[in-house]
Amino acid sequence: MSHASPAPLQLRQITSFFVGGGIRSLSGLPVEHLRFAQNGPMRAVDPNGDYISGQMYVQAYLQAEPRHPLPVVLWHGGGMTGANWESTPDGRPGWLDLLLRARFDVYVCDAVERGRAGWSRWPEIYTQAPLHRTLDEGWDMFRIGPAEGYRTHAQGRRAHDGQQFPVEAFDRFAAQWVPRWAGHEEATLAAYGALLTRMGRCIVVGHSQGGGFALEAARRWPGQVAAVAAIEPSGAPRPDALPDPPVSLPPHLCMWGDFLALHPIWLRYRENVDAYCRALQSAQVRVDRCDLPAEGLHGNSHFPMMDRNSDAVGRRLLDWLEACTAA
Amino acid sequence: MSHASPAPLQLRQITSFFVGGGIRSLSGLPVEHLRFAQNGPMRAVDPNGDYISGQMYVQAYLQAEPRHPLPVVLWHGGGMTGANWESTPDGRPGWLDLLLRARFDVYVCDAVERGRAGWSRWPEIYTQAPLHRTLDEGWDMFRIGPAEGYRTHAQGRRAHDGQQFPVEAFDRFAAQWVPRWAGHEEATLAAYGALLTRMGRCIVVGHSQGGGFALEAARRWPGQVAAVAAIEPSGAPRPDALPDPPVSLPPHLCMWGDFLALHPIWLRYRENVDAYCRALQSAQVRVDRCDLPAEGLHGNSHFPMMDRNSDAVGRRLLDWLEACTAA
Repeated sequence: MSHASPAPLQLRQITSFFVGGGIRSLSGLPVEHLRFAQNGPMRAVDPNGDYISGQMYVQAYLQAEPRHPLPVVLWHGGGMTGANWESTPDGRPGWLDLLLRARFDVYVCDAVERGRAGWSRWPEIYTQAPLHRTLDEGWDMFRIGPAEGYRTHAQGRRAHDGQQFPVEAFDRFAAQWVPRWAGHEEATLAAYGALLTRMGRCIVVGHSQGGGFALEAARRWPGQVAAVAAIEPSGAPRPDALPDPPVSLPPHLCMWGDFLALHPIWLRYRENVDAYCRALQSAQVRVDRCDLPAEGLHGNSHFPMMDRNSDAVGRRLLDWLEACTAA
Repeated sequence: MSHASPAPLQLRQITSFFVGGGIRSLSGLPVEHLRFAQNGPMRAVDPNGDYISGQMYVQAYLQAEPRHPLPVVLWHGGGMTGANWESTPDGRPGWLDLLLRARFDVYVCDAVERGRAGWSRWPEIYTQAPLHRTLDEGWDMFRIGPAEGYRTHAQGRRAHDGQQFPVEAFDRFAAQWVPRWAGHEEATLAAYGALLTRMGRCIVVGHSQGGGFALEAARRWPGQVAAVAAIEPSGAPRPDALPDPPVSLPPHLCMWGDFLALHPIWLRYRENVDAYCRALQSAQVRVDRCDLPAEGLHGNSHFPMMDRNSDAVGRRLLDWLEACTAA
């Protein structure tokens, strides 16, 4: 079967900006002397002074002729960056490509403290040390295979039977993990709130921790969030956090992959999300659940946008976005 | 005067990848217990295991119909990311836009340890603590104004007379600074070398520290680097580092802004670069110097791609690229 080249992406503009955050001032720290430039002189480095902290990074892809009135905003998960959406670790196009070819305007975010958003000194500004995820932990937490199936050498690793993640590219995937901090939820949400204020109405698609933030953003800022899709959300607002009387919240989608029962922490995470979804439904909010195995798509990891069937899964997301924003 | 909308960018593909680095294994570290997910359970975090370290991030913008046979690779400076090239802090299009509209394929890089490239634990993998740049230092080092002209409150700041940097957006600019480490030159160059091996021949445009890396890359890998433009390079190889007998090195451009004499460290940095350029010329390598004030463009900071006259400066870079790659 021969494939014609797809039509080119036609974009009015590609740009980026930073939003949120503010100045933090430090004093009383010792001055260091270091060499930075190749063959350059030593110079004093004085850490006392002003820093920007709490900002996030956003890259915007704007269509020459958008087919949809509302842009899609992509929020990655914990210890990740917007690179999650751009390609798959085995080199196929990511969901960014899918959304651009569907002619959505797309905004790809790096959350506070991650990727191009930068991060702040600790213990002076951040109070805790960063956390770096091991490949060992990712193999288990991302439901690639059983915890005991991880080995340093790729040929010794054991993945789940029927795994859709491109297991041979797991190390390439791990190259895109970045450090993170526990307890920075409010700072992250503050920057997301600043973004939504700047953007006006949009569709938020969040993954994992970003899925939980997306659900929370829809609850806090329902005037800005026209629809919210949480892909494998690791958290959700508490069911009793819905306003009483309930306000009009946008349509919600929660999408889940496979192998949850083999990683019990995911059953607990999902139960929190399910409890919130039940509360939403009681409040007459539209909630669609896309349980991929129940719909005949088996073997998805925690990262369906990177799995071998990422196009098929992404198509379901697109269908939902088009259906619920056209309604 | 009315402006028609520019023609859309027509791109075959936008994608990204990670290159370089490898597995580092840690053991003997204590296990922590933390909560990550909204309302989720505490879970153990075991830092012992494998990490990827030494990788870099590359975003590729590929033209539907490139006008030039060689792609342009953009290398940012110290404590920066590829966001430097995407827009100006006051919201105008960056040099990425200029290069894409000239129909170059463009690869925007985040160097090892910065932005989406991620960074590694220390003191276990990196041996030193990170360095976070203050706004105070940036005001001076980036030649926005005299060191004593910086104030926390923007209205109290004093910039150089005739400054082209959009001073009112200095805090927005500082939002894109990221931490860095001294002494990581070889790790950074190793990943750049892996990138050049993967890409084949290309044009390298580097800024500041990235300009020094670009000069070094052209010296180490002249078969891959077809032309090199160093914008305000903060370093250069030692003049005696050229191979003897000299091999055929690609054409070089060194571009400099204004106000160097007001910041003497820049005179020292520039003297190192000039000494290397003289050695190149003695070895019959084409070296073009673009001293912006001498060419009638006054007031440029260390970041000409962000200055108010960034389009005019960028046009000179484009002219050089087109002239020396057509030759």
